[in-house]
Amino acid sequence: MKILMIGTTGAIGAKVRQALLEKHEVIAAGRNSGDVRVDITDEASIDQLYKTVGNIDAVVVTAGSSGMESFQRLQAADVMEAIHSKLMGQVNIVLKGQHYLNSNGSFTLTSGILADEAARDTVTGAIVSGAVNSFVMGAATELQRGIRINAVSPGLAEDSAGAIGHLFPGFNPVPMNKLVNAYLRSIEGVVTGQVFRVHE
Amino acid sequence: MKILMIGTTGAIGAKVRQALLEKHEVIAAGRNSGDVRVDITDEASIDQLYKTVGNIDAVVVTAGSSGMESFQRLQAADVMEAIHSKLMGQVNIVLKGQHYLNSNGSFTLTSGILADEAARDTVTGAIVSGAVNSFVMGAATELQRGIRINAVSPGLAEDSAGAIGHLFPGFNPVPMNKLVNAYLRSIEGVVTGQVFRVHE
Repeated sequence: MKILMIGTTGAIGAKVRQALLEKHEVIAAGRNSGDVRVDITDEASIDQLYKTVGNIDAVVVTAGSSGMESFQRLQAADVMEAIHSKLMGQVNIVLKGQHYLNSNGSFTLTSGILADEAARDTVTGAIVSGAVNSFVMGAATELQRGIRINAVSPGLAEDSAGAIGHLFPGFNPVPMNKLVNAYLRSIEGVVTGQVFRVHE
Repeated sequence: MKILMIGTTGAIGAKVRQALLEKHEVIAAGRNSGDVRVDITDEASIDQLYKTVGNIDAVVVTAGSSGMESFQRLQAADVMEAIHSKLMGQVNIVLKGQHYLNSNGSFTLTSGILADEAARDTVTGAIVSGAVNSFVMGAATELQRGIRINAVSPGLAEDSAGAIGHLFPGFNPVPMNKLVNAYLRSIEGVVTGQVFRVHE
């Protein structure tokens, strides 16, 4: 397959890319690195990406961030930043991409455990991850030409636990191979409209 | 209790207001009607609302809309309209309101069955409802002074079934008294961080 991966520098993206490269052609897209550049908060940039990279069988998004902030100080602008990036970035990748993807292709988005489990100062992550989960469920019924869509909802990734694990006390780190497998199931498998919750 | 209700003209809001009036003081806020005016897409308007209506024990939101559009034609701007209204409107009512509400007060937001169940042309509703559900789960852990927060996730309201039921084939209409009860459980009850799914 020819796979467009958006975000390959994060802990999860790097391992997913490595696994995909064993069997597939992978085009890496990123804001500041990769084979092609894209700013997923910019609709025109996403359009340009699809025009540049043609003949795509699968799109995988492991980009998009949501900040941490005390709920008492949280401002609408903080939430909107994550909405533009992790939520609307992924939504736009699908809305635009549905017209470019090969038939029977697939989208695999990334949400997160915060949609289901609270942690301190992470309400923004809850909002965008909950939205992505429900988006995937709905969009799966609407996509044409056999195109599928799923989301992977990672828990605390093992490769991130050293850096951010102290912010998530008692969250069990998730082995990277389980995370990679969830993306593989979405990309190479048959299901659609699923949220693969890779939580320990 | 003194209850601030935002949105009292819709099918659900009207019935909830009627039930609350039996035992409580209800201040109705709306864009074009009610005791006070508010535009929930405007942060300054929400601030002004809380400054005008003081000493609030409970806030109930039954306002906020999400349009219907074919997924093939859906644009980011369509999604953003619902995000500004039904999602960020409700989020801002909580972010601002947490500083004004009486201790042991409560917020009751409204999401919707579309977060969990797909229907044609309603991906925007899925996005905002999924986000509200996860927001409530997270925000409940962060609110101070005993303030609670829940969401009601209505299915197809019986009072709306005549007008929009044809758009939701096979969705069982939900009796209005069950919907009203979910709001009462949130406002007068003890739980927090819950999504009351009133689906038939």
